[in-house]
Amino acid sequence: MIKKLYDAIENKNAPIVVGLDPNLKFVPESIKEKAYKEKGETLEGAAKAIWKFNKKLIDNIYDLIPAVKPQSAMYEQYGLPGLKAYKKTIDYCHEKGLIVIGDIKRGDIGSTSEAYAAGHIGKVAVGSSSYMPFNEDMATVNPYLGSDGVLPFIKVCKENDRGIFVLVKTSNPSSGEFQDRIIDGKPLYEHVAGKVEEWGSDNLEGNYSNVGAVVGATYPEQGETLRKLMPHTFILVPGYGAQGATGKDLAGFFDDNKNGAIVNSSRGIIAAHTKEPYKDRYGEDAFADAARAAVLDMIKDINGSIGR
Amino acid sequence: MIKKLYDAIENKNAPIVVGLDPNLKFVPESIKEKAYKEKGETLEGAAKAIWKFNKKLIDNIYDLIPAVKPQSAMYEQYGLPGLKAYKKTIDYCHEKGLIVIGDIKRGDIGSTSEAYAAGHIGKVAVGSSSYMPFNEDMATVNPYLGSDGVLPFIKVCKENDRGIFVLVKTSNPSSGEFQDRIIDGKPLYEHVAGKVEEWGSDNLEGNYSNVGAVVGATYPEQGETLRKLMPHTFILVPGYGAQGATGKDLAGFFDDNKNGAIVNSSRGIIAAHTKEPYKDRYGEDAFADAARAAVLDMIKDINGSIGR
Repeated sequence: MIKKLYDAIENKNAPIVVGLDPNLKFVPESIKEKAYKEKGETLEGAAKAIWKFNKKLIDNIYDLIPAVKPQSAMYEQYGLPGLKAYKKTIDYCHEKGLIVIGDIKRGDIGSTSEAYAAGHIGKVAVGSSSYMPFNEDMATVNPYLGSDGVLPFIKVCKENDRGIFVLVKTSNPSSGEFQDRIIDGKPLYEHVAGKVEEWGSDNLEGNYSNVGAVVGATYPEQGETLRKLMPHTFILVPGYGAQGATGKDLAGFFDDNKNGAIVNSSRGIIAAHTKEPYKDRYGEDAFADAARAAVLDMIKDINGSIGR
Repeated sequence: MIKKLYDAIENKNAPIVVGLDPNLKFVPESIKEKAYKEKGETLEGAAKAIWKFNKKLIDNIYDLIPAVKPQSAMYEQYGLPGLKAYKKTIDYCHEKGLIVIGDIKRGDIGSTSEAYAAGHIGKVAVGSSSYMPFNEDMATVNPYLGSDGVLPFIKVCKENDRGIFVLVKTSNPSSGEFQDRIIDGKPLYEHVAGKVEEWGSDNLEGNYSNVGAVVGATYPEQGETLRKLMPHTFILVPGYGAQGATGKDLAGFFDDNKNGAIVNSSRGIIAAHTKEPYKDRYGEDAFADAARAAVLDMIKDINGSIGR
């Protein structure tokens, strides 16, 4: 799977992923009105609105980008109808040839991680049949429970040619509270990074393994260190745009071929129509055009900064 | 909410919670056959089988216990139909007067944790209406992202009289890999424990706060230390039964009133019919009777061990 992601970045010349984290706050009124008229001001109505919003976005940007990263929380908050929209979004992105990274941040004891892995990036058996319930290509995983919470995901990756990104150093302001604490002379996130390299060591496809890492763009120095500490680990980089990071922060996350990392922007793209410089140029109903402009600007910013 | 849990334990004289983690492997053939006949060997068929299994279990044990802990992974692995069974299980447990602890182990950056909290233990707005999508009473939360991943859950707890249990020291074999690492002279899990007390300090209901902790029964010494370090923190204790811990390991998790902790057993109860001493006494179709006997034995074991 990681080779597929690497190649898709080359083909599109765009080491970026768009976070599909829809929020009713920035779904245009016209879409909401239509959805509520049909389904009422219900969870079904909300789910219909975010699906219609996603579809229009995807249709307008899929040719520019290698991958999308839907955030499960944004769908789960609308209950079962929301999760139906999550699944529909995944399937539609596959139709458009996009790699789907499910930002699910799951992680549990062994037998439970097995179930999450099966449901999201693997298969479940029912009698003599088997199904791929959510069918993401890759998923994010929380390492707090240690190896036996992560290894079941890796097993499923091997069986189904999938990949994961383990949280190493997250992009949020308080990520240092535990992740930066010093253990035997180095921060916890470097210990997690060491494990990620180890977990990936027999999952290589070319230089990179199917066990990637999440490292926040908001911590560029740590990103540079982690790039060196994890030479076989592909890095998923959240925190660009709305969370504050820009292209100049990102060179250190990439390898010598200007690949090996993929930068995510969510609100910076899908809510571009609510913020300058796009707000003035595009009306609310042109949100998908604003998103396309924001994607093009992001590619230019990042490729410029990393010398791609 | 924590007062409600404390009182329910007193009323039932049972500091135990049953983990509703159904797996098709131990759902009786007769239930599966009927479900597959109706819905086929499909995700819908699997979901129907686990719902029927859960319902019969709940009907047979609800009078003995204060709470249940459905594990979201076991439902999520069957996709949308599985999650429909999760929701149905929660609603049915509420009908039976049980407190529902959603074992979801979510945790993300602030804005995303807000969405998880709203979806599971809070409300979401759609137009001028609002909904409680999953409607668990309490939920488990992963602390790896630090305060800003946890505080949105606590805000929602306050607004809706709900509670959370933050992972401090988990029950699995590799939990020590990161959680036991020494930082400034004490293990990471004690640092997390300190934060849990702090987060709970303005969420008290009597002696305990609505911010609880998960501490594995498989680590009794750590449990005893953590009980002292977190005097206002209610402890959810997984790892009893199938994971290896027994009543004698548990005294240190409780307070002087023999409350302040609740011990979970999942497979030890709901799959009792597959294991001795229940397997011989109860046939597969008497799984709910086997579960009732296992609940009674567990209550006796724990109450005996803690001197309740």
